[in-house]
Amino acid sequence: MSIRLGIYGYGNLGRGVECAVKQNDDFELVGIFTRRDPSTVKTLFNSSVYSANDILSFKDKIDVLIICGGSATDLPYQTPELAKNFSVVDSFDTHAKIPEHFDNVNKICLESSTTALISGGWDPGMFSLNRLFASSVLADSKYYTFWGKGVSQGHSDAIRRIDGVLDAKQYTIPVEDALNRVRNGENPELSTREKHIRECFVVVKDGADKERIENEIKTMPNYFADYDTIVHFISKEELEINHSGIPHGGFVICSGKTGKNLENTHVIEYSLKLDSNPEFTSSVLVAYARAISRLNKEKAYGCKTVFDIAPSYLSKLSPEDLRKTML
Amino acid sequence: MSIRLGIYGYGNLGRGVECAVKQNDDFELVGIFTRRDPSTVKTLFNSSVYSANDILSFKDKIDVLIICGGSATDLPYQTPELAKNFSVVDSFDTHAKIPEHFDNVNKICLESSTTALISGGWDPGMFSLNRLFASSVLADSKYYTFWGKGVSQGHSDAIRRIDGVLDAKQYTIPVEDALNRVRNGENPELSTREKHIRECFVVVKDGADKERIENEIKTMPNYFADYDTIVHFISKEELEINHSGIPHGGFVICSGKTGKNLENTHVIEYSLKLDSNPEFTSSVLVAYARAISRLNKEKAYGCKTVFDIAPSYLSKLSPEDLRKTML
Repeated sequence: MSIRLGIYGYGNLGRGVECAVKQNDDFELVGIFTRRDPSTVKTLFNSSVYSANDILSFKDKIDVLIICGGSATDLPYQTPELAKNFSVVDSFDTHAKIPEHFDNVNKICLESSTTALISGGWDPGMFSLNRLFASSVLADSKYYTFWGKGVSQGHSDAIRRIDGVLDAKQYTIPVEDALNRVRNGENPELSTREKHIRECFVVVKDGADKERIENEIKTMPNYFADYDTIVHFISKEELEINHSGIPHGGFVICSGKTGKNLENTHVIEYSLKLDSNPEFTSSVLVAYARAISRLNKEKAYGCKTVFDIAPSYLSKLSPEDLRKTML
Repeated sequence: MSIRLGIYGYGNLGRGVECAVKQNDDFELVGIFTRRDPSTVKTLFNSSVYSANDILSFKDKIDVLIICGGSATDLPYQTPELAKNFSVVDSFDTHAKIPEHFDNVNKICLESSTTALISGGWDPGMFSLNRLFASSVLADSKYYTFWGKGVSQGHSDAIRRIDGVLDAKQYTIPVEDALNRVRNGENPELSTREKHIRECFVVVKDGADKERIENEIKTMPNYFADYDTIVHFISKEELEINHSGIPHGGFVICSGKTGKNLENTHVIEYSLKLDSNPEFTSSVLVAYARAISRLNKEKAYGCKTVFDIAPSYLSKLSPEDLRKTML
């Protein structure tokens, strides 16, 4: 029997889930739920669209709901609220607030006999798994996370808020030399500046003071001041042609020592090169929706993270087939 | 309370486990069990050595036994036999016989209220996990496993059996062009010959017929005939100086498409670069011994593989600390 899926929120992530469901024939998309007027929402595959206000009437028609809201203001209240009536999956990525979000969702799930996966995606998500596996296997080790090359939405938005800026895209780029030192097993201490470069492509208003704008970008606290930042001023057309995608990716590299005198070095590296950040994130969420649906059927209630779920739950293959084909 | 560990078998793998236990302070090494006369066995850290015949008297003194025998003749009978009285971990790596080994061990474990992990290590093991995660997340995808650069014990042994050969080391090397095609998301069809090269360093007897030996190596069915094989004849001294290590490693690379028209490509790559194959394998086994000890305490009896165990079980950190620091 198919897993009956709902999509709550229809931005880039929601569209990615809609695409991913098409690639996974053990799912059936029940509907997309939006806070907008459903009649104004055009979907990629002509899927059914309902008002978010009507979600409760789908209580027994949906096995898992993937919540595609934002971490800043949507998910902290949406996930616990929806977990009262649905098993849910979200991509909450405010790392510092994960423990609090987990506790809120876990309490509701245990009271409601629902199951939730929070913080799915690739970081948090696949990168977290790799940090855990690598550091558990290599006891005397150190791990490093590098992001990019890829578009940071938050940093692009920060540039757009500067007076005189019409549009902007910011790429986070790992510093090659730092990557290589880590890959060589040097376990270096790396400052923020030594790990990543920020490259910005900026479209400005006619007659805008480029020098002032470049200076405002490079000195912006938290976002750019601690990095080597490169600013390019380009035309609107060039931005559209060369910078319309939302690629991303990165590396988790862990190195550690073993042996009688810790004389042997081992390097574990996991990397992602993604043409579309939201579509890959969505694909991870759908795999975890499969797991959450199964866990809820097994009465494993409560909030989970990627750390708590046995890998076999993510696959549509049976345990027998997995042992035969992939082990 | 410490996890009380036993090591059954004391070759390269057993020595690796002895080293790894020193790096994991939540373990206590109860003893090493050997089929040899214990008084003749010198350990790396002056650990206690007992006869394998006395293992049953340790039934209530050991939480997990790591079985360090070979897959060809030892593990198929040792693991089920020892699972009658102990929770066990092994590194059974004959891929084709894993389903049968699993069933044998699972039956005994369920009858005996013990828990087992079979086929731990890196392939099967960490590589299997990455095949599973990548192909579950990317539905329309294809994964590739490359091994090396590293020493293949089986191929080195095969060369040593040739008449006139005194000693040999064989390195398995992935073909760079094949790696790059896979990394580019081409999803190519690759023959055995296109994926790996075999490079051999051979020491021969004085006056041996090198041409015949080289030909015998290159045409050996299963081992070399399907590969491009390079043979170097070197001195005994050179072999000792330059080829005494047992490094290994490899790559699991998966690429797949997403999007409305499958227009976006994603590449997931996991790689290992290991100075010591047996010591890294041992480190994986110790992390899974931690998991098996916990699972047995939770009365989760039966045989498990890396697919069946939630990642958090591998870490000595609490779920709360994992969420706070690694997610």
